[in-house]
Amino acid sequence: MKFQAVRGTRDCYPDQMRLRNFIMEAWRRVSLRNGFEEYDSPIFEYLDLFTAKSGDEIASQLFSLTDRGGRNLAIRPEMTPALARMVNARVNALPQPIKWFSIGRCCRAERPQKGRTREFFQWNADVIGTNDVLADAECIFVCTDLLREVGLTSQDVKIHIGSRPLTIAALESVGINGSQADQVLPILDKRPKLTDETFRELMAGVGLDSKQIDAISQFQDCGSPDEVRQVLGELPNTDEPLATLGALLDRLAELGVSDYCRLDLRIVRGLAYYTGVVYEVFDTEHSLRAIGGGGRYDNLLEVLDGPQLGATGFGMGDVVLGIVLDEKGKLPQLSRRLDFFVIDGDDGQFSNVMNVVGRLRSGGLSADFSYTRRSIGKQLKEANKRGAKQAVIVRGDQVDIKDLSTGSQHNTSTSSFLGSLARN
Amino acid sequence: MKFQAVRGTRDCYPDQMRLRNFIMEAWRRVSLRNGFEEYDSPIFEYLDLFTAKSGDEIASQLFSLTDRGGRNLAIRPEMTPALARMVNARVNALPQPIKWFSIGRCCRAERPQKGRTREFFQWNADVIGTNDVLADAECIFVCTDLLREVGLTSQDVKIHIGSRPLTIAALESVGINGSQADQVLPILDKRPKLTDETFRELMAGVGLDSKQIDAISQFQDCGSPDEVRQVLGELPNTDEPLATLGALLDRLAELGVSDYCRLDLRIVRGLAYYTGVVYEVFDTEHSLRAIGGGGRYDNLLEVLDGPQLGATGFGMGDVVLGIVLDEKGKLPQLSRRLDFFVIDGDDGQFSNVMNVVGRLRSGGLSADFSYTRRSIGKQLKEANKRGAKQAVIVRGDQVDIKDLSTGSQHNTSTSSFLGSLARN
Repeated sequence: MKFQAVRGTRDCYPDQMRLRNFIMEAWRRVSLRNGFEEYDSPIFEYLDLFTAKSGDEIASQLFSLTDRGGRNLAIRPEMTPALARMVNARVNALPQPIKWFSIGRCCRAERPQKGRTREFFQWNADVIGTNDVLADAECIFVCTDLLREVGLTSQDVKIHIGSRPLTIAALESVGINGSQADQVLPILDKRPKLTDETFRELMAGVGLDSKQIDAISQFQDCGSPDEVRQVLGELPNTDEPLATLGALLDRLAELGVSDYCRLDLRIVRGLAYYTGVVYEVFDTEHSLRAIGGGGRYDNLLEVLDGPQLGATGFGMGDVVLGIVLDEKGKLPQLSRRLDFFVIDGDDGQFSNVMNVVGRLRSGGLSADFSYTRRSIGKQLKEANKRGAKQAVIVRGDQVDIKDLSTGSQHNTSTSSFLGSLARN
Repeated sequence: MKFQAVRGTRDCYPDQMRLRNFIMEAWRRVSLRNGFEEYDSPIFEYLDLFTAKSGDEIASQLFSLTDRGGRNLAIRPEMTPALARMVNARVNALPQPIKWFSIGRCCRAERPQKGRTREFFQWNADVIGTNDVLADAECIFVCTDLLREVGLTSQDVKIHIGSRPLTIAALESVGINGSQADQVLPILDKRPKLTDETFRELMAGVGLDSKQIDAISQFQDCGSPDEVRQVLGELPNTDEPLATLGALLDRLAELGVSDYCRLDLRIVRGLAYYTGVVYEVFDTEHSLRAIGGGGRYDNLLEVLDGPQLGATGFGMGDVVLGIVLDEKGKLPQLSRRLDFFVIDGDDGQFSNVMNVVGRLRSGGLSADFSYTRRSIGKQLKEANKRGAKQAVIVRGDQVDIKDLSTGSQHNTSTSSFLGSLARN
């Protein structure tokens, strides 16, 4: 074909759309029942909003455009910068904590690969206006609530929870500070994807000796706050992050989702702006990219010209989630459904068909009919194909109502049939 | 503020989002009950898809960008080109007629004004694969079904129905053909917005004399097919479009929506690709831009490299619809709702609050709680503010359930409260 979709984008035919809507409706339903309110931002922003948050290097990953005045714009690659911009603009009027979610179309000019498209939808849920780790616990709960809602059990997926300040304290305990720590964090973030050899090479490359690398590795492999205390010993900077982590795990237990959660200090998250608890959601085989991830970012609103305000939240994309559901055999059967398929029982009945169809639809019921005038048998076949629950065969002022799952049929007057529906 | 939304785009705070969702949910509900299936296309396409449909001049109204290979892309200004592309790509596999709808974010680099933003949502419903005017009737019915669904009566809004082939036949009847007709059609499209004087000047400017202008005006002012027959007399080219228009009006009467529809031959639609019935939806005062519009476009799929295939459909934007609902006083009250607000009745009960909240949400119920530990009275106030139906005051293994609309209250054990919900 001469005209094609742009590489890395997806055409969403009705079959795929039903799956996308299944995911989006679950995102929305779970968000609302957890007390979050929906917002949305424009699909594009001034470029400097994104570079202010993520640095100039982000520009190469953006689809950029210009407005009539020649100013640089970009399609949003994520929701958080606009969220911060919107909150900052009304920060004095909004009651806190602000619990907001969004289901946003985002684009990144990256190379397409498994689980990564250039256009995707991302669910975001954030709590802004509190430093309490309760907010982090709630966000992680919302994540598990969604996973359970779409049928993924704690055998299928796990939320791996780390801590930025604890990781930084561990680095400090072996003498790694400031700019050297900034170089180490991205390597730690990549560690789960690296061989041990490559990991050690990269760490040595930024100036760490073998003993330091061993100590950091040992810290990252700790499975509980107690183990961290044993490994790191008594350090002034670990008390608070360890207490926070302990409180988080307590809250998650109270909320009943410990089975979905595990401490995993190898999680540090790539982005520089995280300041507290961080987490990523993975399939238990760890065979795919992260399904989602998030954490605390207490400085972002200030960076974007607002007040210093505690903030935490997560994002989850539709692409990897769809793949996980598929691979775990949890994709739902989503077929077309119709309440009624209306059929002309005799020649010359089509205007009565139109009339019944119009009345049913106006009454809020789904109804359809055949565009082609043909035998009752063929129309019944079409009714079955369309997933109709009942066929309505119109004969003058009478209708035969046929239940298409049981095959049972009864006859009544058109007016009493329509009247009975109106009363429901 | 340093960071702002791009001019002509809209930040959607929760209040506005509830209205947007109200409109979108009505669009989706009405589409589904009329037997349409949802699809979506990428937010951007190769530029040539849009220029192939609408000519090179469209490029100046587009937000354009480039991919990594330097090819020209543009954000979609409407859904129809991608719809045609997607149908063409699978035309042999898709059962016809194809009845599809979409709710698409679109962008146009136009000057913002009342009812026109640079970013908007457009609902589209199309029937592809039949030349039968039945499909046009069904699309117009879907339009009225939506208008009624959101509370707009036939006193508030009207669908004005014209006919491209009839208009062309009328032009031919006074000797206007080919390229001269192509110049006249855009002037006719603008006529409702022009003074009579300006209209006549523009018509004279493309070479029409006074008699021709009078004849065309008289034709456009006809209120029924019979009147058209009287004005135009017996002409070979008018029989078919008149019969089609008559059949359309019959179908709309059978479907029970004649009150929303009126013949209005001043409607010709600006775009060149319409080939049959055309229509636009206006508020009855005609004080605003069109709420929506559509028509038959039997050649578009072929232009975009596919087969010649009958096609008809319409689009409706969220911006003007929102303004009409507001101006007619039909904006719904959309406040936050919550099933339960959970409160710690005594000190030290917070972990029990967490537990109850987790259980309620996991069971599919909406529940929230106060982030701040404070008196029951203050928490009850917060519950009311949040639109909670019931407050759950936790005291050990007991809960007081308070109905916040009636004020009635009863006590039960936490386990029997949670158990009773699970059974529903």
